[in-house]
Amino acid sequence: MKMSNMLVSTLREVPAEAEIDSHKLMLRAGMMRKMASGIYNYMPLGLKVLKKIEDVVREEMDNAGAQEFLASAMIPAELWKESGRWDAYGAEMFRLKDRNERDFCLGPTHEEVFTDIARNEIKSYKQLPVNLYQIQTKYRDERRPRFGVMRSREFIMKDAYSFDKDEAGLDISYNKMNKAYVNIFNRCGLDAKCVEADSGAIGGSNSAEFMVKSEVGEDDIVFCSSCDYAANIEKAAPTPELAEVEELKALNKIETPNTRTIEELIKFFNTTEKKFAKTLIFNADGKIVAVMVRGDREVNETKVANALGGVTNLEMADNESVAKATGAQVGFAGPIGIKVEALLVDVEVAKMYNFIVGANETGYHIENVNYGRDFEGTVGDFRNITEGEKCPHCGGTITISRGTEVGHIFKLGTKYSVSMNANFIDENGGQKPFIMGCYGIGITRTMASIIEQHHDENGIVWPLSVAPYQVAVVIVNIKDEAQVKVATELYESLRKRGIDVILDDRNERAGVKFKDADLMGIPMRITVGKKITENQVEFKLRNSEDIDVINIDDVYNTVKKQFDEAGLYI
Amino acid sequence: MKMSNMLVSTLREVPAEAEIDSHKLMLRAGMMRKMASGIYNYMPLGLKVLKKIEDVVREEMDNAGAQEFLASAMIPAELWKESGRWDAYGAEMFRLKDRNERDFCLGPTHEEVFTDIARNEIKSYKQLPVNLYQIQTKYRDERRPRFGVMRSREFIMKDAYSFDKDEAGLDISYNKMNKAYVNIFNRCGLDAKCVEADSGAIGGSNSAEFMVKSEVGEDDIVFCSSCDYAANIEKAAPTPELAEVEELKALNKIETPNTRTIEELIKFFNTTEKKFAKTLIFNADGKIVAVMVRGDREVNETKVANALGGVTNLEMADNESVAKATGAQVGFAGPIGIKVEALLVDVEVAKMYNFIVGANETGYHIENVNYGRDFEGTVGDFRNITEGEKCPHCGGTITISRGTEVGHIFKLGTKYSVSMNANFIDENGGQKPFIMGCYGIGITRTMASIIEQHHDENGIVWPLSVAPYQVAVVIVNIKDEAQVKVATELYESLRKRGIDVILDDRNERAGVKFKDADLMGIPMRITVGKKITENQVEFKLRNSEDIDVINIDDVYNTVKKQFDEAGLYI
Repeated sequence: MKMSNMLVSTLREVPAEAEIDSHKLMLRAGMMRKMASGIYNYMPLGLKVLKKIEDVVREEMDNAGAQEFLASAMIPAELWKESGRWDAYGAEMFRLKDRNERDFCLGPTHEEVFTDIARNEIKSYKQLPVNLYQIQTKYRDERRPRFGVMRSREFIMKDAYSFDKDEAGLDISYNKMNKAYVNIFNRCGLDAKCVEADSGAIGGSNSAEFMVKSEVGEDDIVFCSSCDYAANIEKAAPTPELAEVEELKALNKIETPNTRTIEELIKFFNTTEKKFAKTLIFNADGKIVAVMVRGDREVNETKVANALGGVTNLEMADNESVAKATGAQVGFAGPIGIKVEALLVDVEVAKMYNFIVGANETGYHIENVNYGRDFEGTVGDFRNITEGEKCPHCGGTITISRGTEVGHIFKLGTKYSVSMNANFIDENGGQKPFIMGCYGIGITRTMASIIEQHHDENGIVWPLSVAPYQVAVVIVNIKDEAQVKVATELYESLRKRGIDVILDDRNERAGVKFKDADLMGIPMRITVGKKITENQVEFKLRNSEDIDVINIDDVYNTVKKQFDEAGLYI
Repeated sequence: MKMSNMLVSTLREVPAEAEIDSHKLMLRAGMMRKMASGIYNYMPLGLKVLKKIEDVVREEMDNAGAQEFLASAMIPAELWKESGRWDAYGAEMFRLKDRNERDFCLGPTHEEVFTDIARNEIKSYKQLPVNLYQIQTKYRDERRPRFGVMRSREFIMKDAYSFDKDEAGLDISYNKMNKAYVNIFNRCGLDAKCVEADSGAIGGSNSAEFMVKSEVGEDDIVFCSSCDYAANIEKAAPTPELAEVEELKALNKIETPNTRTIEELIKFFNTTEKKFAKTLIFNADGKIVAVMVRGDREVNETKVANALGGVTNLEMADNESVAKATGAQVGFAGPIGIKVEALLVDVEVAKMYNFIVGANETGYHIENVNYGRDFEGTVGDFRNITEGEKCPHCGGTITISRGTEVGHIFKLGTKYSVSMNANFIDENGGQKPFIMGCYGIGITRTMASIIEQHHDENGIVWPLSVAPYQVAVVIVNIKDEAQVKVATELYESLRKRGIDVILDDRNERAGVKFKDADLMGIPMRITVGKKITENQVEFKLRNSEDIDVINIDDVYNTVKKQFDEAGLYI
């Protein structure tokens, strides 16, 4: 494209609305513009990158044997009522009515739609496996849209749904997708780590997320500094720290006035956090439950929700419910005599000796409490792993980083096929529910994440594979006819060879042109200036400071070398 | 693709929901499935065709200098309020609220969005012209969705918006789009006629529609049997038929009991329809107006709406309004003494002599009425042209066919730029509103229209340019290893040469495979059967009955010849 014909929308100023680098740069380079909170329009430059990422995704999905499909974004409520998610989804779902008052939503995801397709179109085990995917616009009414397309309300997603006749088939489908995802992110130049994730309320036996490290990410990712272990903190299973063995002492109720916080209690009892067991009271879909963890630990709500059989809404109970459960004010809950529908006890607490808990009486605690002797509950892993703990795989040291999810693969099992009665006829002529998997990649979020990992103070530094244009041919002085002629010939000859090339033929100073090419992140720059009298132009890579003076006849080979090194075919 | 890995969803039965051939065949070939009234999911086969049409559109738009863009489908109400269309659009617009009760719509079209983009991004005449297009999903809550994707509520559209500094620039942009559209429909094998259309309420000086003949079309298209003239009946300007000159006679009020219809009046007066002038009373956005046409003519509501300065809702007035305007019951309206805000007189009526009209008094008519002497009004063209009339261009004979619009190009002028205050700085440093054009193609409707024009009793007959697969390699007997080997080699070698080829390796009878390939409309079929012992296979075109026995080594050249003849590059 000639830049004189292009709507160039680069900005010198950093827009006030943007907080993170990718958001700033997508606005500054003129890749997108905000239309409403969390809703963006993609300008030509941004759309070109999106399409390149989509093409990579499409190729890898096709190679993995998946078939492209396109479902409507508008979905009738009936399908969501069948699965039970119409009511469960809450405020994040955009809902609307048609002129006949029928309910629809804008799909936040498409499990129901694809389950419906499968039950209508797939009759026999002979037709399995089937994996259908789409690259399509999704809608989620986020409470707090932020960071540009990183957390937006309308976004482009690749979602795939696999249908198998048995678990062994699902394993194969799932592993194919896992491999495809590794290829996709590699080809996009994105360092995305595959981490163990919680499959929780959605059910099924396995789930992995592809995460990129990001300070503004919504998840805590647990890494081992020695081995390959990586997991979402929701999922990471810590090794319990065992307390020193003590003889069991007699229970002792003690008046503890003005001691509601752990800090106040430590002072009062002159001991450490590890001697306390906190009892937290939650409202779990309307049921009141208590969870105990050691004084210095944090409750992991995902693990709690899973242990309770898949809770949709888990939140701290209100004061009234706490008073009802404990007979005391907030701050004095304990396991002995508490009235709750379930008492979950972290395994670490179950293995402590002579610890201190609330007495379920305002102003009192009990010391020398021991699990088994003094109370019982459901023992399990209900806490977050913390930095410095031992890796559950190798015993190495755990570190934790914030991360953003760019992909998620899921073994769904029969959750949707059973609730929606989606069956096939098996080898023996019987009806069996499909064994399903689902697999998502956030296309728009992947674009932003690539920028987060590939930029400098001058702008974006696109990997060649997803660059909107691969080469910028810059004319230093458009009043010099010879420069225009040479540059235009170079531009045309590269274009004809299938290279995405842009010709900066604008009537601007060379400095402005260099700045724009850098901001837009074009990987290669060919500068056509005075040296053409010696049959020479300048060649510069975006990710290097070096400027090579090369012969005009060598331009194609110099460019091609970059493609070869990147493993790209032109 | 190997059909054993493909979700084949062909149907032998004609689905009851489908009324027209394209709808039946899209369901039977497994190209799409209905999710809700007027809302469809595209299966892999249908999506492949959509993408091929999109690629043709994209290439021609790019060649015409337009730049691809992607706007959100969800649009904040504010933009539509600026243009005044939030209230005007009515029930056809899907509306929704976000979690903060802000109003949004699902875009039925995007003039407001692109005008907003232009006013934010284009500052100076130096940046003009700009033409932005997108291929994107549109939403219109049709009162009566019908005929599959021909009239659906969610559909894919290519919409483009041009911005120029003056009318001369708009002419160039408009003509480029006109030419691109001709190329697009030609390349898709669609016989679409460019017809003059009304630009009416949207304003501007020119508008043309690309129409395909269709019995279920929503428009009447006027053709000349002698010249190239073609127009939407909304637009077609008839040549007034001049009555024989008579001397003006004196007005005469006559009692006409029980004569409300033209037929009753003809009998009563013993004359012809051409001696009467009908006076029809309309409610035009709340104003009561009257329109006069000759007794045998039909009022053209588009022309009336335009003459009144762009009326949004034009409908027959209710009885109460008629009584108020005429002082009489319905059936006795006439121009003399009528109380209306405007009286529009078709030019044919203005040139009649001694004609009969209602007397604005129940049970009475007046004869010997003459325009100018007895009443005055706004004279113009307010009627439909009729079959058999003279062509306004060459005097040939007019015929009328039903048609469906697949494309529409529009000179918008400043309608949106003025109402939305979208200006640029002109050569003299002053602010000027953009001169706009807009240009649409219904991608999904184009697909259905191609099928309407290219099918037979066995199924679809795709033009090579948009066929989902160009070649089907059919294995007659998959238990014959030699056949499987030859067919697979042929399949792989064609695929490697960039041909979209499908290998029917299913365990089905050959007849079933032939029927499926015919139903899906694959242009070329290569049948691998017993003749392989003589190094031969069968070659058959979908649009011919002939079967050629060809040498295996000649397969590629035989296939390539079809591409060459279709002007396609492989």
